[in-house]
Amino acid sequence: MKVVIAPDSYKGSLSSVSAAEAIARGVKKALPSCEVISVPVADGGEGTMDSLVSATGGQKVKVSVMGPLHKKVEAEYGVLGDEKTCVIEMASASGLELIDKSVRNPLIATTFGTGELIKKALDDGYRHFILAVGGSATNDGGAGMLQALGLKMMNDAGEEIGLGGEALGKVTTVQLDSLDSRIKDCQFLIASDVQNPFVGPNGASHVFGPQKGASPEVVEMLDRYMVNWANVIEQATKVRLHDRPGAGAAGGIGGAFQAFFPAEMKRGIDIVIEYTGLREKLKGATCVFTGEGQCDYQTASGKTPMGVAEAAKVEGAPVFVLAGSIGKGIDELYQYGITSVHSLTTGPMDLEEAMARTEELLESAAERVIRTYLAYNI
Amino acid sequence: MKVVIAPDSYKGSLSSVSAAEAIARGVKKALPSCEVISVPVADGGEGTMDSLVSATGGQKVKVSVMGPLHKKVEAEYGVLGDEKTCVIEMASASGLELIDKSVRNPLIATTFGTGELIKKALDDGYRHFILAVGGSATNDGGAGMLQALGLKMMNDAGEEIGLGGEALGKVTTVQLDSLDSRIKDCQFLIASDVQNPFVGPNGASHVFGPQKGASPEVVEMLDRYMVNWANVIEQATKVRLHDRPGAGAAGGIGGAFQAFFPAEMKRGIDIVIEYTGLREKLKGATCVFTGEGQCDYQTASGKTPMGVAEAAKVEGAPVFVLAGSIGKGIDELYQYGITSVHSLTTGPMDLEEAMARTEELLESAAERVIRTYLAYNI
Repeated sequence: MKVVIAPDSYKGSLSSVSAAEAIARGVKKALPSCEVISVPVADGGEGTMDSLVSATGGQKVKVSVMGPLHKKVEAEYGVLGDEKTCVIEMASASGLELIDKSVRNPLIATTFGTGELIKKALDDGYRHFILAVGGSATNDGGAGMLQALGLKMMNDAGEEIGLGGEALGKVTTVQLDSLDSRIKDCQFLIASDVQNPFVGPNGASHVFGPQKGASPEVVEMLDRYMVNWANVIEQATKVRLHDRPGAGAAGGIGGAFQAFFPAEMKRGIDIVIEYTGLREKLKGATCVFTGEGQCDYQTASGKTPMGVAEAAKVEGAPVFVLAGSIGKGIDELYQYGITSVHSLTTGPMDLEEAMARTEELLESAAERVIRTYLAYNI
Repeated sequence: MKVVIAPDSYKGSLSSVSAAEAIARGVKKALPSCEVISVPVADGGEGTMDSLVSATGGQKVKVSVMGPLHKKVEAEYGVLGDEKTCVIEMASASGLELIDKSVRNPLIATTFGTGELIKKALDDGYRHFILAVGGSATNDGGAGMLQALGLKMMNDAGEEIGLGGEALGKVTTVQLDSLDSRIKDCQFLIASDVQNPFVGPNGASHVFGPQKGASPEVVEMLDRYMVNWANVIEQATKVRLHDRPGAGAAGGIGGAFQAFFPAEMKRGIDIVIEYTGLREKLKGATCVFTGEGQCDYQTASGKTPMGVAEAAKVEGAPVFVLAGSIGKGIDELYQYGITSVHSLTTGPMDLEEAMARTEELLESAAERVIRTYLAYNI
């Protein structure tokens, strides 16, 4: 019997690698003889790099770069087991989690560090990139990243505009030939589920600005500056980002990729499934475990358990979801191939306890699910 | 496919009858075509009467009796579907739950009301009794029950001693022929898992007195009075209760049954299994659901899921336990035929929420378990 274990991370408490190990222990406890294949996965958010590096036997490279508020941070990029593909989590260099809530400021925050990560990887010889763009602190339309890669962005006095969302209000021209010439020889795969356009009421500033620290007034300012930046981009590249789906991803860095880079956007979970070789590993599986922190109706929109279930459907293997918490609307998930959703909690407990005990609770949840599942023919 | 549903009550939130209905809804949701047999059960504690009456299609009879602290209470006895067997929960007339914690007082509390319930059932023509003796507020060695049934208990001045644990200190003789003469024609089956003797360090007063409101000093007094009562009983009936296992059940009423009544003590769950016809109903079952509020290592000592699992073992059907809370040591339960133990909680929540939502949570737990179980061959 072959059991495939493909959980996401349990945000704030357990990485997908540790989660897969815990589930494997539970399965083995109930069924010591079974073959267990662990494939830690992610949906393009936190843990995507770790999942891909771990699943392919790759490695990570530390790089000191500029953080979102212009201070140095220690970031890293990953190299997959193919030694060719470089995976970058934007949050590692320009993430919201890198700064205290009280100082969040998208007028200042820049994606410069993400550009530095790409530059270092280019220097190291990589030309294939996977970019996971979740969790950014920025609303700079990807300008910082482009600046780190050499792009000169000028105001009407011919001076460089500086960094952050506010600077976008002053840009009037860009010097396309100043952008790192190696970019055009690259492939960028952007892991993003976001369909929002660059600007307007559904654009980056209005939808994601507030969670990055923008007041309603700042949101209006940011959107105005982004319109200016989109106009400049359209003039320079002939790419119109204003209403383009996905251009609003991660403070507009999605648009920068679309306009300046040879880039393709895909659902995070699809990229992870492809690069971890999950489909191949699912062949002949008797059953599949996946999981995430919170499982609810939103799971159906491209989150990890959904993607794993879609991939497992071909094999006809049942898919069990182990969730930190089960929310509303899980009935909807059954039609996509999810067999059942189980909570980790073993009784009344608060969030703090549940998070502190995630590893142990995952192990026992996996054990009781496999015991239940196997009872049919015992 | 036949699914047997035999839960206990979920103490403080749901009766076993409602619990069985909720589980049945969850099972039917996953598998509309299956045959569901509901057998609400109990282990001799709270809910035993309801379980037996419900499972056999019997009825309940209301009787106004003396409560533990001598005030009137509305109690009831049950009559099983055989129209012959009468089931009495001592807690209904003399229970701890009938009185406020602040006024608990085993020096005063009496089993008189339990005796009145028996007397009424005798008057109504019943001679077969099942007595569930859990949850009593009393430590009167069953004296009150005997007094209600006519037994004259005298002090050395030849006066009747009155009611409650304190009065036992004064008793010097009993008039055996004053006891209701119908008793000797009866059968009493006492549902009790308690093995404690009548008196001494493991006796009723020391072990159960404190939870009934006795201070350490009162415990010593009660035990002394119970020794006196045991001496009087031994003199009158030749039955020595002092060290007799089970005589300490329910403040010593266990001993009163052993000395004065044609009585047999059995594990509560065994009586319930016998009288609900659970074994017969389990024939041909594909799987079995049971459950209780808290499932842990103590479950192995005669609690409901344990008894249900033992009964189901003959059929080889897997047994799933749905527990409000899973405690330590459940691994031990697997050897007795329990397949897996599942919690009702769907994520972090406090006890109050879990109890308020028990019905809904039971339904969804049953659904996910049956979905998981059936996945094997789908």
